[in-house]
Amino acid sequence: MSERVVLAYSGGLDTTVAVAWLKQNHNLDVVAVAVDVGQGGDMEVIRDRALKSGAVESVVVDASSEFAANFIGPALRANALYQNKYPLVSALSRPLICKHLVEAARVHDASFVAHGCTGKGNDQVRFEVSLGALAPDLQVLAPIRDWGMTRDQSIEYGLAQGLPIAPGNVSKYSVDENMWGRTIECGQLEDPFIEPPDEIWERTVDPTVAPSQVAYHNIGFVDGLPNELDETRMPLADIVAFIDKVAGSYGFGRVDMIEDRVVGIKSREVYEVAGSLALIKAHVDLEELTLDRETLRTKRHLEQRYAELVYEGLWYSPLRDAIDAFIANTSQYVNGVVRLRFKPGDVSVAGRSSSGSLYDMALATYDKQDAFDHGAGAGFVKLWGLPAKVWGRVHPPVTPR
Amino acid sequence: MSERVVLAYSGGLDTTVAVAWLKQNHNLDVVAVAVDVGQGGDMEVIRDRALKSGAVESVVVDASSEFAANFIGPALRANALYQNKYPLVSALSRPLICKHLVEAARVHDASFVAHGCTGKGNDQVRFEVSLGALAPDLQVLAPIRDWGMTRDQSIEYGLAQGLPIAPGNVSKYSVDENMWGRTIECGQLEDPFIEPPDEIWERTVDPTVAPSQVAYHNIGFVDGLPNELDETRMPLADIVAFIDKVAGSYGFGRVDMIEDRVVGIKSREVYEVAGSLALIKAHVDLEELTLDRETLRTKRHLEQRYAELVYEGLWYSPLRDAIDAFIANTSQYVNGVVRLRFKPGDVSVAGRSSSGSLYDMALATYDKQDAFDHGAGAGFVKLWGLPAKVWGRVHPPVTPR
Amino acid sequence: MSERVVLAYSGGLDTTVAVAWLKQNHNLDVVAVAVDVGQGGDMEVIRDRALKSGAVESVVVDASSEFAANFIGPALRANALYQNKYPLVSALSRPLICKHLVEAARVHDASFVAHGCTGKGNDQVRFEVSLGALAPDLQVLAPIRDWGMTRDQSIEYGLAQGLPIAPGNVSKYSVDENMWGRTIECGQLEDPFIEPPDEIWERTVDPTVAPSQVAYHNIGFVDGLPNELDETRMPLADIVAFIDKVAGSYGFGRVDMIEDRVVGIKSREVYEVAGSLALIKAHVDLEELTLDRETLRTKRHLEQRYAELVYEGLWYSPLRDAIDAFIANTSQYVNGVVRLRFKPGDVSVAGRSSSGSLYDMALATYDKQDAFDHGAGAGFVKLWGLPAKVWGRVHPPVTPR
Amino acid sequence: MSERVVLAYSGGLDTTVAVAWLKQNHNLDVVAVAVDVGQGGDMEVIRDRALKSGAVESVVVDASSEFAANFIGPALRANALYQNKYPLVSALSRPLICKHLVEAARVHDASFVAHGCTGKGNDQVRFEVSLGALAPDLQVLAPIRDWGMTRDQSIEYGLAQGLPIAPGNVSKYSVDENMWGRTIECGQLEDPFIEPPDEIWERTVDPTVAPSQVAYHNIGFVDGLPNELDETRMPLADIVAFIDKVAGSYGFGRVDMIEDRVVGIKSREVYEVAGSLALIKAHVDLEELTLDRETLRTKRHLEQRYAELVYEGLWYSPLRDAIDAFIANTSQYVNGVVRLRFKPGDVSVAGRSSSGSLYDMALATYDKQDAFDHGAGAGFVKLWGLPAKVWGRVHPPVTPR
Repeated sequence: MSERVVLAYSGGLDTTVAVAWLKQNHNLDVVAVAVDVGQGGDMEVIRDRALKSGAVESVVVDASSEFAANFIGPALRANALYQNKYPLVSALSRPLICKHLVEAARVHDASFVAHGCTGKGNDQVRFEVSLGALAPDLQVLAPIRDWGMTRDQSIEYGLAQGLPIAPGNVSKYSVDENMWGRTIECGQLEDPFIEPPDEIWERTVDPTVAPSQVAYHNIGFVDGLPNELDETRMPLADIVAFIDKVAGSYGFGRVDMIEDRVVGIKSREVYEVAGSLALIKAHVDLEELTLDRETLRTKRHLEQRYAELVYEGLWYSPLRDAIDAFIANTSQYVNGVVRLRFKPGDVSVAGRSSSGSLYDMALATYDKQDAFDHGAGAGFVKLWGLPAKVWGRVHPPVTPR
Repeated sequence: MSERVVLAYSGGLDTTVAVAWLKQNHNLDVVAVAVDVGQGGDMEVIRDRALKSGAVESVVVDASSEFAANFIGPALRANALYQNKYPLVSALSRPLICKHLVEAARVHDASFVAHGCTGKGNDQVRFEVSLGALAPDLQVLAPIRDWGMTRDQSIEYGLAQGLPIAPGNVSKYSVDENMWGRTIECGQLEDPFIEPPDEIWERTVDPTVAPSQVAYHNIGFVDGLPNELDETRMPLADIVAFIDKVAGSYGFGRVDMIEDRVVGIKSREVYEVAGSLALIKAHVDLEELTLDRETLRTKRHLEQRYAELVYEGLWYSPLRDAIDAFIANTSQYVNGVVRLRFKPGDVSVAGRSSSGSLYDMALATYDKQDAFDHGAGAGFVKLWGLPAKVWGRVHPPVTPR
Repeated sequence: MSERVVLAYSGGLDTTVAVAWLKQNHNLDVVAVAVDVGQGGDMEVIRDRALKSGAVESVVVDASSEFAANFIGPALRANALYQNKYPLVSALSRPLICKHLVEAARVHDASFVAHGCTGKGNDQVRFEVSLGALAPDLQVLAPIRDWGMTRDQSIEYGLAQGLPIAPGNVSKYSVDENMWGRTIECGQLEDPFIEPPDEIWERTVDPTVAPSQVAYHNIGFVDGLPNELDETRMPLADIVAFIDKVAGSYGFGRVDMIEDRVVGIKSREVYEVAGSLALIKAHVDLEELTLDRETLRTKRHLEQRYAELVYEGLWYSPLRDAIDAFIANTSQYVNGVVRLRFKPGDVSVAGRSSSGSLYDMALATYDKQDAFDHGAGAGFVKLWGLPAKVWGRVHPPVTPR
Repeated sequence: MSERVVLAYSGGLDTTVAVAWLKQNHNLDVVAVAVDVGQGGDMEVIRDRALKSGAVESVVVDASSEFAANFIGPALRANALYQNKYPLVSALSRPLICKHLVEAARVHDASFVAHGCTGKGNDQVRFEVSLGALAPDLQVLAPIRDWGMTRDQSIEYGLAQGLPIAPGNVSKYSVDENMWGRTIECGQLEDPFIEPPDEIWERTVDPTVAPSQVAYHNIGFVDGLPNELDETRMPLADIVAFIDKVAGSYGFGRVDMIEDRVVGIKSREVYEVAGSLALIKAHVDLEELTLDRETLRTKRHLEQRYAELVYEGLWYSPLRDAIDAFIANTSQYVNGVVRLRFKPGDVSVAGRSSSGSLYDMALATYDKQDAFDHGAGAGFVKLWGLPAKVWGRVHPPVTPR
């Protein structure tokens, strides 16, 4: 009996070819594992395809709720945006997929795990670091990185092996998708001066064809997590899906950026992330109402590091965990309602309220109810500006005179 | 002969009343100084109003180009956004106004300088810290902070003194404006759950009435500063004005936020900042093409601090200067063209190019020209993930099994 | 019956005079509260002195263990050193004292709280911010800041009032002390070029007279906190006291620095902090053995912010709490033994061990047991250096050629 | 005629063996380049040894002054300490050596460069990243990393080849040295609980045998760089050497630490760095006198990043350059004199003075000359504590009551 390998299976060209390759070249029995993280599509079709390609077992794991609870939730509380733009769509699903690969390896008594990533992308890093952290004893195989076939050679090999691939359907683009967004790479996107063609968009419309009437939706947050939509309790995954759909229908949520990969190169990436961007906007706004200035400033620095860590495959790392402890602490105060407004090309916050609001109308108003001690202003300014004044005395400015 | 005070004069209710007040209560001759930083309006009218209010001298300084060159330019290179949202409109003009106040104080032999700020706003801080840094010897007066009159009492006092004020024209809102944007406060904006009323917007339209045809404009950058619009050389101030107008006409650039003031309170602020946000977007994008990852990451942290410093009145401080030295160093590489695309509610980058681009198609492509060493990926990932693996051995994860 | 004020009472000149002053000038009945935080001295004498000065009640709170557990412990886990030098001796005790002032105010039904700080020091900030956070309803009095007497005038006033002060015993220096260290200010220390005179030192000897034999002590840590000394379980307060004594006896632990105060001025401060510095050294070392690189780097940045916060009076603030949550998370791994070595003028780590050690001899050794994959080094270096290489191609270096 | 390789030659076992190996296995003519960075020893002996080992050319470059000016100077201004402890001794010399390797490759028309580093150390990274940045066209060889010989096998090979090696002299330790310090690795140091044996120390004595009389030396700084010793102008390299010697003679400057290597492992490292630590102490102190608080705080964060960059081989990188621009800006104010005091086991600052001192006795004193506005303190504290008070109202503290 051959040893077993658990393969992260997506149903696409590369991993389908990998099923056959692992059998042929490594003499391994392949257990295909496809993880549903809200990417859409018929998972049963994918399951069958693995079997037709020669897998000895083919498992589909419905991990949507787990993905929402344990990955999207923390990422939203962290306002996690790599380069301040990309909500980490794929970077978030990889560690969850790895958890299920490891579980399957234990169940199916496999000593190998395999992924279908190339040698220049981020995902190889995310898979291998996560797998190493969760199961240092398992050996990781990366057939696509090893075999060095181009896309055309893969198709040729697949056809020769009689694998269930349809060359005509193989996209020019490399796409990954889950409930937090959709990523598109390759093809003519590789020239960063060329605008992405219309054909690539699936979850967002063009702002020019967005509805002209304004829409509003209220998001209720508890502990920094959405739990109500328009005053109705709802699971996080459903709120994400709803807002993604509405925001996308208004032409919001397309990202086109030059990105710094883990492996040291720049790439051009395109994303559809209407729901994640809209919810992060709402969450940031509620934080600004309910957290004090100094906490916000330090949290913003940590958020950048958090996004870098997750992007770079270090989800399972003590630093991610420690930052999450910081964020769990601040999130206990992030409760309230944010009113999102949807217009063509735009989702913004129209209003926010919270029982834990630190906005104090009596202090803020310029009206006659003003409770602020204006006299204290003078003393404050005097000491606040004292270092600048001493500096000005010791180093008299040259310019103004 | 009375001693002289140089008053920062805007032509509005407060500073008009201050002219009379400083004469009456401090027995000072008032030299009114109005500084043109691109706020629009007829500066001659303002000049006259000061004289009619009793000023012994009334000076208008055209500082638009200086504002663009020495304040907007650096702020743009720093992508300076307070709380990641507000492009520091007023915070940028205050230090320049102070420079001209000090110059006028020297010319007119004044030993006092006065501003019209209250005791709870940010501007008192910006004025007094800047003045203290530039001229530690001058004494600063803050009549509005001292007198404690409400808006209605000011009007009453002004009318009684026969000052050129038109109570009917006094806005419910407190507005400040320059070429980098427009700020609106007070009135019903003080309830953070209430949406800003349509009447407050002047420089932006609603996305629902934006033109449906797409527009494109190319911004050429040299040393991190825009110097060409659609292949035509143009002064920075003109590019800013043009982009502000176009972006605003597409319904882009409204900001509505809960802001942390220097004096320790939260306030709700509303801005029209179409041009500044659009240009910062373009600049960030070009940086991502031309600067390496590590430089970008550290610069992003410094940008947050930079925005805080400027917001908090510390323009004239050694730290602002030192961060600008860092940025001047990185900006030498930020050259190229960014193609901005204007759609309803949205301005985004449609393409970017640079002779100093670090994007290397040969390294990035998944095409057959691929020059990336995929084998190196395996070695890289192994060591990149080594700490996570050692951690996993020492602290075996509980969850997945 | 008069209203009551709870006064933070130290037994020194200023607070003794304040007892009388508050009665005379504010017509308040004074409840004196002295908090024992390990400063040494006879607390009963202090208690009596307050009564003799006219206090209606005089309370001594033994808060030593509480101080160790709730303030020194967290500070040690945070390696909290202001300006990387000062272990926050007084800054740590103030919030604890304030907690007991508030408790006493509730017990004794006082609506005022008073402290004996001047208007230019840090302690006024620490007292008032802590009191405001814990009891926003209580009114805070600062008699010393208000009355504006010099030291000589205070003595004169005190003698005139028949207060129990001994002018001959009034130190030239201003001293504050607790188990975490001793601070000395004023007198000839105010010239930063003049060396501190020998007379000021009490808890440390000069290295030139230190014992010439070497000593060793093992500190056992659990959850980042010392709990064993030389293999014997011991309360934290006792370990701190023991190490302070030994380290001081070896001439270690004197700090002389230019410090940036909260109120915007620089001052020259001198400290005796042998125990705190030695324990922080040990703790840092154990962290370096048991925490991974990225966690350490981010924690080091947070530690700086933590020390600033505490120094600036913001102990009771959500950011301090959130950083402590981060640190609590990392501290669960900081277990083991650190061997401290004591020599004249020096305390250093002679060895460290931990069951959670991330040091892996098999990976680190250059011996034949070497388990490190040297081949991976080449791949790693290639990608690690790729950005620098691309940069070198795009911007060829001028210098070397 | 064979192609040529320029080899970084130290005269030690590994690089001596590499001369023969590169000829035998790569058929390359070896140009040996030894760079004098103040490591001591007779460079002519080293030059001869390369020739005797088969090098076709052997070059010695005296780069001591260049090392002081272009590497030690910047590192000192950056207070560069990796993990807050290690002054980057070897990490600083590597980029300079690489510069001279590239220069030699151009002169001698070589298309290869070689270094003698293993696959698990930091130096391979520093060499290869620097070489890639300076000369992307040159191919880098790493014979020691490739051949996989143990130390004993190297000796055997060397003896068999008749190379000038003396097995009896081969140290148990791996040592690197230059004017900024001395590093010691391997042997029994690999157990982190074992104390380093006395035999390894060469530049520092034990504090127990240090002189008992105190010594003082004044360091004059201009632009953040030492240029005077005891009022006498002196080149930086000479001041470094002098202070290193004195400080070492007092038993100061031994470092023993667990270090995080670039390649992802922890190692135990031991250093003698008396001069560098003493000068950094002096420089930090002068900065605290002459730079304002906010500049210092941001600079301290940047310093950590700077040390990481240099440690990790990224000397030739735009971020190092940009941080140096920041530091050059702040260093213009760091002028004055620091008085260092030398006692057994201890070097500390006894006094400091500067014409650019921001310490203002009139503001700092508690004496009658006090110029500080104590009244402003009350207003300042009120607003400084306002966020904490608002927080306390919204989230009433549970604990004290």
